[in-house]
This record gives sequence, C-alpha cells and structure tokens, in this order.
Amino acid sequence: MAEEKLVSRSEDYSKWYNQVILRSEMADYAPVRGCMVVRPYGWALWENIRAALDSRFKATGHVNAAFPLFIPMSFMEKEKEHVEGFSPELAVVTHGGGQELEEPLVVRPTSETVIGYMYAKWIKSYRDLPVLINQWANVVRWEMRTRLFLRTMEFFWQEGHTAHATAAEGEEETLRILDVYTDFAVNEAAVPVIPGRKSDTEKFAGAVRSYTIEAMMGDTKALQSGTSHNLGQNFARAFEIQFLDDTNQLQHAWTTSWGLSTRFIGAIIMTHGDDQGLIFPPRLAPIQIVIVPIYRNDDEKAGVMSVVHKLAEELSDFRIKIDDRDEVTPGFKYNHWELRGVPLRIEVGPRDVEKNSVMTSRRDQPGKPGKKILPMENLPAQIGTLLDDIQAALLERATNFRDEHIHDVAEYEALKNVVQDGWAFSWWCGDADCEAAVKEDTKATIRCIPLEQPGGSGKCVYCGKEAKEKAYFAKAY
Amino acid sequence: MAEEKLVSRSEDYSKWYNQVILRSEMADYAPVRGCMVVRPYGWALWENIRAALDSRFKATGHVNAAFPLFIPMSFMEKEKEHVEGFSPELAVVTHGGGQELEEPLVVRPTSETVIGYMYAKWIKSYRDLPVLINQWANVVRWEMRTRLFLRTMEFFWQEGHTAHATAAEGEEETLRILDVYTDFAVNEAAVPVIPGRKSDTEKFAGAVRSYTIEAMMGDTKALQSGTSHNLGQNFARAFEIQFLDDTNQLQHAWTTSWGLSTRFIGAIIMTHGDDQGLIFPPRLAPIQIVIVPIYRNDDEKAGVMSVVHKLAEELSDFRIKIDDRDEVTPGFKYNHWELRGVPLRIEVGPRDVEKNSVMTSRRDQPGKPGKKILPMENLPAQIGTLLDDIQAALLERATNFRDEHIHDVAEYEALKNVVQDGWAFSWWCGDADCEAAVKEDTKATIRCIPLEQPGGSGKCVYCGKEAKEKAYFAKAY
Repeated sequence: MAEEKLVSRSEDYSKWYNQVILRSEMADYAPVRGCMVVRPYGWALWENIRAALDSRFKATGHVNAAFPLFIPMSFMEKEKEHVEGFSPELAVVTHGGGQELEEPLVVRPTSETVIGYMYAKWIKSYRDLPVLINQWANVVRWEMRTRLFLRTMEFFWQEGHTAHATAAEGEEETLRILDVYTDFAVNEAAVPVIPGRKSDTEKFAGAVRSYTIEAMMGDTKALQSGTSHNLGQNFARAFEIQFLDDTNQLQHAWTTSWGLSTRFIGAIIMTHGDDQGLIFPPRLAPIQIVIVPIYRNDDEKAGVMSVVHKLAEELSDFRIKIDDRDEVTPGFKYNHWELRGVPLRIEVGPRDVEKNSVMTSRRDQPGKPGKKILPMENLPAQIGTLLDDIQAALLERATNFRDEHIHDVAEYEALKNVVQDGWAFSWWCGDADCEAAVKEDTKATIRCIPLEQPGGSGKCVYCGKEAKEKAYFAKAY
Repeated sequence: MAEEKLVSRSEDYSKWYNQVILRSEMADYAPVRGCMVVRPYGWALWENIRAALDSRFKATGHVNAAFPLFIPMSFMEKEKEHVEGFSPELAVVTHGGGQELEEPLVVRPTSETVIGYMYAKWIKSYRDLPVLINQWANVVRWEMRTRLFLRTMEFFWQEGHTAHATAAEGEEETLRILDVYTDFAVNEAAVPVIPGRKSDTEKFAGAVRSYTIEAMMGDTKALQSGTSHNLGQNFARAFEIQFLDDTNQLQHAWTTSWGLSTRFIGAIIMTHGDDQGLIFPPRLAPIQIVIVPIYRNDDEKAGVMSVVHKLAEELSDFRIKIDDRDEVTPGFKYNHWELRGVPLRIEVGPRDVEKNSVMTSRRDQPGKPGKKILPMENLPAQIGTLLDDIQAALLERATNFRDEHIHDVAEYEALKNVVQDGWAFSWWCGDADCEAAVKEDTKATIRCIPLEQPGGSGKCVYCGKEAKEKAYFAKAY
C-alpha cells in the first residue's frame, strides 16, 4: 500500500505542484476543461482563510451581501477600459428556459458593473455613505491555460465594493484593505508578501490605481496574491452613482473594489511545501495535529487507545485527527499526513503510555531535529507553544528565502541575470516603454512599486533617466 | 421622515410580503429579470441559518466541498427522469472566450450529475464509503414567475450528496437529514414544520423517495422548506459509481441528496411577520437587540450615552445595534427596527439612568404587554431569558396557528372547503389519479405523507377505497 514517491520540487516544480494537490486530495479536475473541484480537504483550508479574512473585514466595518451571477451584456460595455479588459474572458448565456434570450447574459467575471447599478439605486445622500459591502462568491473567466487554484475558469473569492463621499476616503479604504490583506498573509498564512502599487500597465481594467500584495513562490516566481483598487469616479460615472452632499450638491461617489481568491491556496502551497508534500501554517491548517496510535497487539491497543482518546479530549481546542486505521502501518500514516501538510504529529505507543509522555514530530523539521518527547502534564499549553513556534518558523524561513532571492540591481545586464532565479529591486522612471522592453527581453514584469521606498532618486535600470521610485521586477504566475 | 405604512397582511398578503422585504432592505430586484440581490440585512440572516445548519451537518459527520458551476449538457441527459424534470429550467452557456462552444454548458440547477461523475472517479472500494459531502452554492433555474426568496432564477442553498454501501444506509442518511432539517426549523427558526414523505408525483426528478419538511405560512398556504432524497442506485447506474464490497464483488453505490435554500428565509418571514413588519426568532436574528437612547439635550445625552456604551459592553455576547442617529426621533427608530423584526428593544432615557434600570420592549408583543422595566443588575442573564421567552413564544404561536388550520377531513366536500383556508389531513389510497383529481378541483396538492401516522386504515378521501396512510392536502407556494 505504499504510495508512489512525489516528484521533487527541484526536479520539476510544476509537476510537483500538480501532484501534491491531486494526491493530498485538495482538488481535482472537473469534467469541464479548466474548471476544478475543490475537495473537502482543500475546502476546509479555504473555510479557514475565509474566517480569518471575514473577521478582519467585519472589524473594519464591512458587511456581506450577495449580488447576482448574471450580468446583462450591455452593463459590461459601460466602462470603456473594463470591457476591453474582460471581453476576451467572458462566458455567455444565450439560452434560458428553452428560449434564445433577447439580450445575452454574462456570467460575472467580477461584479463592479452590477454592483454599480445597484449602488446607483441605493445611494441618494451623503448620509448613505460610506457603503462597505463584501461578497463571497464564484466568478468565471474564460482562461486558455489553467492551473489548479492559480488560474481556473471558475474560481472562488471575496470581492469588496465600497462607495465614499470623497476621493481621500476612497484612497484610504483602498489602502486599509491592502493592510488587511498584508496582515492576513503574514500573520495567518506565514506568507511574507510585499504590499505595493501596480504600474499603469498592470492595473485593474477600470481602476485609477491598483495595489497588490506580491508573494515569492518556492521557485522564486512572483504570485499576485490579492489586489485592492481605487476606482476613482470611473464606475460612478458609468453607472450614475450620485449623492447629494452636505451642501446639497449632486456629486459622483468614489468607489473601490478589492479581492482575494482561491489562488491564495496556491500561494500557501508554493511558499511552504517541500519534497514530502504540503506544509500548512498551523493557524490555517484544516488539521493541526494528527494523532497516530502505535501497538503490536490487542493488549497494547487497549492501553494506547485509551490514552489517545483522553488526549483528543484534552486537545479539543485544536483541530485534531486520530488516524486509527488498522489496515495500514504507522509509517504509511506518517507519509500520508506529511504529504497533507499537517503541522504536528503526535505518536502514542506502549512506552509513551508507560512513561506518561508523547512523542511529537514537527512537519517543518522532518526527521530527528523536529522530534520531541513531551510529558502529558500541561500538554495543551505545550502543544499551543509548539504550534506557535511552527507558525513563526515557517514565516522566518519564507522571509529568509525571499530576501535571499531579492537583489538590489542598478545595471540592466544584472537585472536580466537576476530575474532568472529571483527578483530585481531597481529604480524605474515610470515609463511604460521601459517596462515593456524589460518584459520583452526577460519575461519579467513589474510586480509592484512597494509602499516602502528608500527615498531619494536614482537612474532607471532600463533607460538611465532620473527615477523617483524603485520597483520589483520578476517573472510571475 | 415618517415611512409610509405597510399594507396589512389581511388586506393583501402577497403585497405585504414584497413590501416588507424591500423596505426592510433584506433584498432587492436585480437588473436581470427573476434574479435578486440579497442585501446585507438579508444575507446576515442567511449567514446565521448557514451556521446553524453547518454545525449540525458537521456534527453528523459531513464535510464541505465545492463542485463546478458548469455541467456538460450531456451529463443532464444521463438520468431519464432527471433530464425530464430539469430541461425546461436550464440556463445554457453557448459561448466562451469569444468562441462558440462545441458542447453547450448548463449552469447547474442542482449537482447530482457532476457530483456523480466525480464520485465514480473517487470511489473504488467499500473502504471509501460512506462519502458525506455538502456544498454551499448558488444554483440557477429558469423560472417564469418569480418571488423574492421563494422562487428566484438564481438562489443560494446547500446541497448534500452522499454515497453508501447499502440501501439501508442510504435510507438512514436520508431520514437523518430530515431530522436535522426538522430540528433546525423548529429549534432555530421557530417554524413548526411537519416532516413527511412526498407522493411519487411530487418527488424529486430521479429520486426513489423524497422527504420534505412542510411549513404553514401566515396565509395558511404550505411552503416546502427543505427536502431529502433517497436516490437509490439511479444516479450510481447513470454515472457508474461502483465499488468493490468486502467480498470483492463490484456493486453500485446507493446515493442521497438533500437541500435547503434561501427559500427558507421566505418561510421565516411568512411564519412570524405581522402588520408592523418582520419578526425574527432571536436565535437567527441578525440583530437581537436594538438599543435606543432617549434625550432632550446635550446634558441628558452625555449621561444616557455613557450608560448605553456600558450596556453594549455588558451585552456583547448578543448581537446588538445602537441606534444613535441624531437626525431621527426615537419613535421613528422604533418603527424602523420593528419593521426589521429585531426581537428586543432596549430604551435608555434620563429616568432609566437615574433609576439604574432599562425599559425593554418585545417585538412579538407590540405595545404595553411586551414592555418591562429591568434593573441593570445581572442584566445579561435577564436579557438571555427574555430572548429565550420570545423564541419559545414565536414557536408556540406558530404551532397554535398551524394546528388551528389543520382539519381532519374524511369527506371530499369538506376537504374542498378546508383547503380554501387551511390544510386537510385525510386518508389517501396512494393512487396518483386521486391526487391529480383533487389538484384539478381545488389546486391543493399532497404536501406530505407525514412520518407520524395514526395507524390503522381508512377510506381514501377522494375515491373511498381502502387507504393505509393519511396525507396533508393544501395549496402551496
């Protein structure tokens, strides 16, 4: 019953990624090309991500709602940049109830348009503002090349849509959410993202300014992991979202939108995983602790299982799983749960029962270094500390890996080299032509202009002209 | 700023229903005909419903997952009854990414087919069974006559899909979920549903047996509020869900499916609402308590607001809202929150501050009878008891109303009369022709053959032949 070994990450990163998802039963391919099934183990991770984000949204004054899946085709055409950006990706319903429709319906690729239409109905006065609504939803974008979690035709996300009385409040909201995303990524997922602004080329279709959190994956490629857009008055003009201000003047509202999707699951997999499989950060892990009983006969089993059940009760504040299968060996179980990224394993054998202790094994430190005997006394507190340590160690390791692969680069030749296996941090003059030339030469794009800037000025890494900001250049998913 | 009065329920029940939903801002019409927007206040109720059900599903061993929105058209055609039942209601995607598709895609009206396909991939051995998966999802059915929450083109629901090794286990699961639904409806929503079996005419397209919970609305019409289906081996045969049993024989699995939708929000509205608006059961209410401060000047305001904030802190285990708007009167606020069904109001004025007490006002007992002065001491416990009392009173009132409008009827002439303003409980021989004749004459259908039967036998209310079971006949939504 031994499972075939995973391909190693260094050998074939892309194959490793697919294998680890399929074998851990996080997701599977759906019968429709490009669609995925998120299996219970993957969905449990998403539920934890959702809870961590949702509590942050609610703490910053947001509420949830549900807007419709179908959008009239004509809505998509009301904002010029928006329609250009999304037209090639639309799935279109042309028939309903056996009849051809007069106007085709678009399956939402994102909801700015239909929400803009509703906001125009609801918002009349400055007293109605701000409107701070989020929705957890599925969206569809017709993609040619798909990858589980990273790019699928249907995916799951949250999309926040807010409306404000002033430009300043809109920008403040956009940045507040960028903070929320950063805090979530770093402190829940142990993914050390870099928050920054998108270049005009890379911004959302219809936005004035887009912000992003960018993460470095285990192969050094960048992954855009969440975005927050200041839409200015673009959608308010297109959909006539107007309000009477406190001096009784009619004004267009200022809107924002922001989203984080199941793509983030890909970020977690590729930030922390190793050749044994997944490694989940304890705060989000669907199963935080697996307990494996070890015995050779029924006598031993009785003693061991009674301790295991006592343990399970004591540790009920954690998300635990007892693997009490009789048809497979303990070694098989170790591999099984290592592949699935469970952060901590507890083994209970007859000698542990005798000594009133348990053996723990950290997923982030395979083999001996991660093993530790813990006395049963005060176990929940010890386990809590251990899980905190694992969480911190994952963040530290990912941060070190990221920082080792970011290079301050002044010369273009050096940049070309660096982006083969890392990110370049370089001065950029702001010209889209320089950006395009770098992409053409190296396939690296500007991932973001980070909020944290060194100050001063320098020379553009491509054209040598005066530049006021530094940007990250990298290949990306 | 006074709001226009609601139409009364007795005057125009249907208009009352729409008005109360729109004015309370639970939902709104979407730009696409037949679709709805569930606004934050309505969605908060759904989130509470979801939490109450989800914890029950998990306690009975189920896990959540996400299956795709799009289903190949050919899948729908694999189960004969299923395709006949759903064909007229399908929304069809014919174009994607600017191209016409080779095979049209159906937007899921329900997911038996695509989940059946995946289960056939995943299930190999009896060790893989049972599979107990639920999903929270949106589905689309092309409806001609739509009503907010009750019947919309897109709606939200959970759909459970399970697979088992034996027929008995399949039936057991189907009934276990019917129990879960009943428990949820009665104990969380205070909706006294009657669990029972559907007649063959009324069962799910593709099921062997369908079970339902039926609720009586405030106009005595029935609302099917949740259904649980034993699918036998029908879908296992259509999709080749097969497993090796413990004697190494290849068998088809036994499957079930079950769902409860945003329609249930309609059940809550129509069971409890009155001429003032909504009345929400405390256990599910988005806001359980609204606190209204009362003052005439800034001096009074300071004293009152300091008590209000202290109150809010003490009552933080409840879902509370402080209505501290300055631009509207207390009376306006009372109407505002009565319309929105908040179960309990707390008023705090200068005299309450002086006396160290608060005035409480029950939504289910408008006016004087529902008012009570409570001392501040030990307030959270008193409020908890009061909310429990409201919850119990709503269930009692709804149960009495239901029982007053159910009539034991032996003669067909009496049945015809009864179903004009109630339900008839009558012997039925089981013949679909009798059922059809009653429907033709009266528009009343068999809502369910309740699990609880009187025993013995009687004469069919329509044909007079020997009958072994009694059924509820009623007009329905």
